[in-house]
Amino acid sequence: MEVTILGCYSATPRTFNNPTSQVLEINNHLFLIDCGEGTQVQLRKRKIKFSRIKHIFISHLHGDHFFGLIGLISTFGLLDRKTELHIHGPKGIKDIILLQLKLSKSWTGYPLYFHELDTTTPELIFEDEKVTVETIPLAHRVYANGYFFKEKEGDRKLLINEVQQYEIDVAYYRSIKKGKDVTLEDGTVIPNEKLTAPPENPKSYAFCSDTVYKPEIAEQIQGVTGLYHESTFLEQHQHLCEKTKHSTAKEAAQIAKAANAQQLILGHYSTRYGNIEVFKEEAQTVFENVILAEDGKVISFE
Amino acid sequence: MEVTILGCYSATPRTFNNPTSQVLEINNHLFLIDCGEGTQVQLRKRKIKFSRIKHIFISHLHGDHFFGLIGLISTFGLLDRKTELHIHGPKGIKDIILLQLKLSKSWTGYPLYFHELDTTTPELIFEDEKVTVETIPLAHRVYANGYFFKEKEGDRKLLINEVQQYEIDVAYYRSIKKGKDVTLEDGTVIPNEKLTAPPENPKSYAFCSDTVYKPEIAEQIQGVTGLYHESTFLEQHQHLCEKTKHSTAKEAAQIAKAANAQQLILGHYSTRYGNIEVFKEEAQTVFENVILAEDGKVISFE
Repeated sequence: MEVTILGCYSATPRTFNNPTSQVLEINNHLFLIDCGEGTQVQLRKRKIKFSRIKHIFISHLHGDHFFGLIGLISTFGLLDRKTELHIHGPKGIKDIILLQLKLSKSWTGYPLYFHELDTTTPELIFEDEKVTVETIPLAHRVYANGYFFKEKEGDRKLLINEVQQYEIDVAYYRSIKKGKDVTLEDGTVIPNEKLTAPPENPKSYAFCSDTVYKPEIAEQIQGVTGLYHESTFLEQHQHLCEKTKHSTAKEAAQIAKAANAQQLILGHYSTRYGNIEVFKEEAQTVFENVILAEDGKVISFE
Repeated sequence: MEVTILGCYSATPRTFNNPTSQVLEINNHLFLIDCGEGTQVQLRKRKIKFSRIKHIFISHLHGDHFFGLIGLISTFGLLDRKTELHIHGPKGIKDIILLQLKLSKSWTGYPLYFHELDTTTPELIFEDEKVTVETIPLAHRVYANGYFFKEKEGDRKLLINEVQQYEIDVAYYRSIKKGKDVTLEDGTVIPNEKLTAPPENPKSYAFCSDTVYKPEIAEQIQGVTGLYHESTFLEQHQHLCEKTKHSTAKEAAQIAKAANAQQLILGHYSTRYGNIEVFKEEAQTVFENVILAEDGKVISFE
């Protein structure tokens, strides 16, 4: 599992930083999360193949999280994309995109599906044999939800020396990996635990931006591998969190701690602080494993 | 008069080039023309003061000419702008912007006016004591119009030595500059031509993007100082012009020649040509004074 930060600053535009967007690679899926203005250029700079992106998840309809979406959708069309594209995002996102496509007479030549969200409790919005995606209800100035991406538990791992010792036919390997015991020709039953090791622990990633401090998040994402949680302000500006519905670095760390997260990633920094290291310092008073998101940073979870 | 090219490439996104946007400084006005994705960042990079922009002119609703508008409008709001802003552009532009402001609950704190256009003949859309702006009807795949910016003729220039020789009171200077004769106390009439020189020739700028070759443009903009005319293709790809409703470099030069323009600026290059010098070479077979628009280039008209 790997996250590439395309942009992680809050709304005020900066010359050399980009608004929120991330690419999550999880169990061979490539998910784009949020899509601020200029995201298509950042994807190009990071040499991320457009055609691998089949799902885009938008957290809320503030510009710094979705103004780049229409450009990306249009560019996919110009590049003659055929692969379908799914947009998950708040109610209204479909109207915004379709109105622009209509007025520019730029209908896409590929199937474009909208999945509009309006949830107050966690909701399963995507599932296949490899991953699930749930919404994480957030509390912001407009409707907002985060996303909780989870790998499904994989197959058990074949202990190849053991399997060969019993001269088991290759045809059985698949069922053994699924956990089946094996009955030899002489009737002996070899229990699966002798032939396999447990699968790797499935990894998970929670994306929470933008929101006030919301302890329920921690309950939902218990044991999460990587938690991205916004930290627009420091504790000294707590009063601005109430007003603008954002969190402090310390509050983000409290969510990480309560969720027993392995790794906390901070981002969405207000531009009032000269140096983003202060966010890390404040968060580490509560939770040790903190990484600062920065444009272009790639974070791997082993 | 001065034009700053913020971006001048055609729709396919490039890593290091920007879609169409220009800033025209004319008689102390600062006009923004077109606003492709990322324009707000380009304005910042060029250190152009946001508050000086009071009018934005959008040529048509293709993404590479206006996807940056909503971001700019929002940013003006975040920065607590109070100055009014006028958006001139095709019908539908108001719906697109207002829908996004509504869904993001990001109403601007400054007066925002829309002037929607749907003209088939040149129309005067702005006039004050210093400049006029007319639409230039274009022919593209969607409704499109260019813009013709003209300085008004200024006052005549006082020949200060002459004026002082006749001991004319300062109180008369304003009327002399407006062209009035002066009657001295002894009844002698001094004709205005003795006291003033003609005003500077007013300058003008025509912005024509995107369009098929349209000879009527040249009639409308006779004697234009600076003509920006798109040249998406070279003559060898003339057939693509018909299909996509664009012009070749040669056709742009034919417009410049027929209009008796002083200067032709080319732009909106298709990315299929490795080197943009080929556009200049082709245009110069018809019209000598050719400049290639490039991101960040500043073109002054003396």
